[in-house]
Amino acid sequence: MTLFIFLLACGAAASTGIIFKPGDWYATLVKPSFTPPNWLFPVAWTIIYLLLAWAGYRLTLIPGSEIVLALWAAQIALNTLWTPVFFGAHRIFAGMVIITLLWLVVAAMVLLTVRLDLITGLILFPYLVWLSVAAALNFSILRNNR
Amino acid sequence: MTLFIFLLACGAAASTGIIFKPGDWYATLVKPSFTPPNWLFPVAWTIIYLLLAWAGYRLTLIPGSEIVLALWAAQIALNTLWTPVFFGAHRIFAGMVIITLLWLVVAAMVLLTVRLDLITGLILFPYLVWLSVAAALNFSILRNNR
Repeated sequence: MTLFIFLLACGAAASTGIIFKPGDWYATLVKPSFTPPNWLFPVAWTIIYLLLAWAGYRLTLIPGSEIVLALWAAQIALNTLWTPVFFGAHRIFAGMVIITLLWLVVAAMVLLTVRLDLITGLILFPYLVWLSVAAALNFSILRNNR
Repeated sequence: MTLFIFLLACGAAASTGIIFKPGDWYATLVKPSFTPPNWLFPVAWTIIYLLLAWAGYRLTLIPGSEIVLALWAAQIALNTLWTPVFFGAHRIFAGMVIITLLWLVVAAMVLLTVRLDLITGLILFPYLVWLSVAAALNFSILRNNR
């Protein structure tokens, strides 16, 4: 039941990728050489959302996880916000602000989780790596598309 | 610190109201007689987001609140999703699906919270009332604007 609640939260975030597509606007942006191929985004995000729901479920079983669960809530809100702002409203600077806050929240979440339960921290780690790539991509697009 | 995390999550949800405005599209929709005046929406949501952050903070201090915190996370993701889908993408039916899920999650959150701590449940109650109005408005707009 609890796992289902976390899957629902991740489903809300994931659905932004279906409703707000990159489209022609993204195709014509100047992008850096490290830009991942388009097919990799839905694959990476699907894996990360499943890991994120699993980690959230594991956190509810660990005593003293209240603050980490608050961080989990903050990251899923910021994650759900980024896609419509970037791909829907084409607001590259606002996207950069959101993804920076998101990165900080996820970094704090991973650090605090590692101290509670190493395995759960490792489950969350790919998310932080992928967010670093996404933030660098957003920053490069911001600099090179005035 | 924990209150700040919840305020950040609510800030992410609230910023959708600044980035995705109702605009001309909403003005021309056929709306029911019970539609609240435009000025009431930002006022009501500001109060509700502050209450929601306060309730989240209080929940972290209550033992056994893990599942309610998971519901808190799911509701803030669905809440952040609704505005860009409805006002950004003009997807009235998708908005109806999202707000129905959101209402169910918030109803479950309020019920479970009341059993943990009556005061926190009461703090959350205006949110459920306002969501009921918003869901009825979305449904009416869906029926009368084909």
